[in-house]
Amino acid sequence: MGMTMTQKILAAHAGLDSVEAGQLIMAKLDVVMANDITGPMALPVLKQMADNVFDKDKVVFVPDHFTPNKDIKSAENSKAIREFAKAQGLKWYFEQGKSGVEHAILPEAGVVTAGECIIGADSHTCTYGALGAFSTGVGTTDIATGMATGELWFKVPGAMKFVLKGKPSRYVSGKDIIIHIIGRIGVDGALYKSMEFVGDGIQNLTMDDRFTMANMAIEAGAKNGIFPVDELTEEYLKEHGEKEYKIYTADEDAEYEEVIEIDLAEVRPTVAFPHLPGNAKTIDEIEVMEPIKIDQVVIGSCTNGRISDLRRAAAVLKGHTVHPDVRVMVVPATQQIYKQCIKEGLVDIFIDAGCAFNTPSCGPCMGGHMGVMAAGEKCVSTTNRNFVGRMGHVDSLIYLASPEVAAASAIAGYIANPEKVGDR
Amino acid sequence: MGMTMTQKILAAHAGLDSVEAGQLIMAKLDVVMANDITGPMALPVLKQMADNVFDKDKVVFVPDHFTPNKDIKSAENSKAIREFAKAQGLKWYFEQGKSGVEHAILPEAGVVTAGECIIGADSHTCTYGALGAFSTGVGTTDIATGMATGELWFKVPGAMKFVLKGKPSRYVSGKDIIIHIIGRIGVDGALYKSMEFVGDGIQNLTMDDRFTMANMAIEAGAKNGIFPVDELTEEYLKEHGEKEYKIYTADEDAEYEEVIEIDLAEVRPTVAFPHLPGNAKTIDEIEVMEPIKIDQVVIGSCTNGRISDLRRAAAVLKGHTVHPDVRVMVVPATQQIYKQCIKEGLVDIFIDAGCAFNTPSCGPCMGGHMGVMAAGEKCVSTTNRNFVGRMGHVDSLIYLASPEVAAASAIAGYIANPEKVGDR
Repeated sequence: MGMTMTQKILAAHAGLDSVEAGQLIMAKLDVVMANDITGPMALPVLKQMADNVFDKDKVVFVPDHFTPNKDIKSAENSKAIREFAKAQGLKWYFEQGKSGVEHAILPEAGVVTAGECIIGADSHTCTYGALGAFSTGVGTTDIATGMATGELWFKVPGAMKFVLKGKPSRYVSGKDIIIHIIGRIGVDGALYKSMEFVGDGIQNLTMDDRFTMANMAIEAGAKNGIFPVDELTEEYLKEHGEKEYKIYTADEDAEYEEVIEIDLAEVRPTVAFPHLPGNAKTIDEIEVMEPIKIDQVVIGSCTNGRISDLRRAAAVLKGHTVHPDVRVMVVPATQQIYKQCIKEGLVDIFIDAGCAFNTPSCGPCMGGHMGVMAAGEKCVSTTNRNFVGRMGHVDSLIYLASPEVAAASAIAGYIANPEKVGDR
Repeated sequence: MGMTMTQKILAAHAGLDSVEAGQLIMAKLDVVMANDITGPMALPVLKQMADNVFDKDKVVFVPDHFTPNKDIKSAENSKAIREFAKAQGLKWYFEQGKSGVEHAILPEAGVVTAGECIIGADSHTCTYGALGAFSTGVGTTDIATGMATGELWFKVPGAMKFVLKGKPSRYVSGKDIIIHIIGRIGVDGALYKSMEFVGDGIQNLTMDDRFTMANMAIEAGAKNGIFPVDELTEEYLKEHGEKEYKIYTADEDAEYEEVIEIDLAEVRPTVAFPHLPGNAKTIDEIEVMEPIKIDQVVIGSCTNGRISDLRRAAAVLKGHTVHPDVRVMVVPATQQIYKQCIKEGLVDIFIDAGCAFNTPSCGPCMGGHMGVMAAGEKCVSTTNRNFVGRMGHVDSLIYLASPEVAAASAIAGYIANPEKVGDR
């Protein structure tokens, strides 16, 4: 029996010729990452196991959730990982003001690459699957173990194959595609499986589209999401960092528990309604409903805070102003993206339209800070989760959408179709 | 007996030919302002007195302290003033992403002007004295009364005259001068008095220098600080808004309880050490001390978040990088200042140096969010108060300084002299 991409990477990291779904393995880790929420919780556990991390170049901390620090507690948490990183002499510690959101900065800075086995103490660690890596989120105890020993046990996941074909239309991007997929299979549709994206359609997806899609694999319950490495990926990897990478290709006879074909040309701008990422509705369905008035728009996060995302949002907003009843938070995912936004005039467009343009942070996504909602408020957000109360009050509502739908909605004051605003 | 500038404005607003220090008067109000902390507290008090505000054009709300909203409570507070402003049809409500910090946005947007009588439910409302207005901070009950009735009682303040002469040296700005003054007279040195700045030296101060100095009058205990209106002021007023303004000049025989002469050429870069703004030390005194290592730098606020401030900080930082042990928060005070920073390449300089460049907010100044400190941390801050625990943990320390001292310290990792870094 052949192996999937994911299985091949896991086999290689377990020192085995082959693995199969359900098998328990011990795999070597290439990158072990934690943030300012999970890192401080992992440190006491780590200290029970080891005085030092297994490898100074492979253990990474990114304070990004409650930074710039929102309160004393978060300042203490950031301090804990800062001091630990310094004492251990870690190669990769990403300080506030010098970095960005973990799942954007790690690929950008070349910390992660194709063929690697990566764990992070954050659900959306699956993002790096866009680069052809096996990458998954784990809990605090597991991350501590990974930091101490450099390896971790895994149950080899079974797989679902998503065969993408065709080309998305102008106002459809990775976010619409992944919400469409989660809408089809449900939030437990890929439970503990790897979502393996394949097909000719991938060539029509930017790297940023792929990051967005891999990022949300966890929202379908998947262990990981993964894309094959093509020329675009290799170009990206060569531009970002100097790590050697390895390309794994699925065997012809790899086993998939399910195969789903998706014609990208048929995917419509799609929004996930409260309170699940799988509660998908197309913009056409929304347009025949009563207008859903909104109070806030968030454009950013590890899901959609990359340069293509901000370009797409800015193209819609250009020459328009934000509806008077709406406040808009735009958050570039890294300092480099921020600078690129300045260079391309995007920050001017956002500010002229009436948006707040924030420093990189996870901020509003998990109701952390920088855009928390009051009771009864509604937000169109390019983030990845719309669970009850995630962005603030338990009676606030989150609609997950693409940067373009978010921008169009900011102008209209209700959930709107970017195709109708037009591009300038 | 003649009157001071302050007394003349108060007399005019009380409908009296003359007033004298200590007299109780009822004065008409031109602008009544509250923010997202004080506004929500004032509303229930206001509602006991009136259904509507006295004048839709004169009551102003600026949500700037905990915005973008840091938590549910702050989101509820912002919502309360937003809904009230909308229901009342107020002319001036400054939404997040479309405005800035209260004491920067009110002059910039032309809400306040020379000769006015202004109250705000925020200590640093005295800032507008830079424009030749009487402007002071009041409590919640007073602001509610002002909103309901359009007038408020005042005890006419006695005055101190500060005769400024000469020209400040290259690395000395308004912040150094006001810390120098507070250092000389103490934090209760001007208790309930008006600080009246006069003299030839004023022509060597930018409007931003004057805003900074008037802003910190309260830190000497003053009722208000005030500058005469000169050509520069008039130029500023004509560029900002369309309000008619009135120039009041002190009588020759106005009474001053004290007259202090200051040669601006002799003022040195000056830092206020913990825990009082009057605990002033010159950079020369600091340079012979053991280096004071720092963890954070904040450049911004209603005191020093204006374009000249950011230009000065950027000039020092250009081509340098922030010390690895220091995190730097730069916060432009308004969206217009933000845009100007982009235009002039300042944001690039800050980001290249390794600073976080935030959206306008009071943020870290009062330990609100966006840069709160942990125990044992030290911050060089361009803000206005260094009271115990103001920016976070009760065991953190704040050193108040100019934007240039802050920038030089960010590079050095300890409190440093900008004269030694040099300008590029």
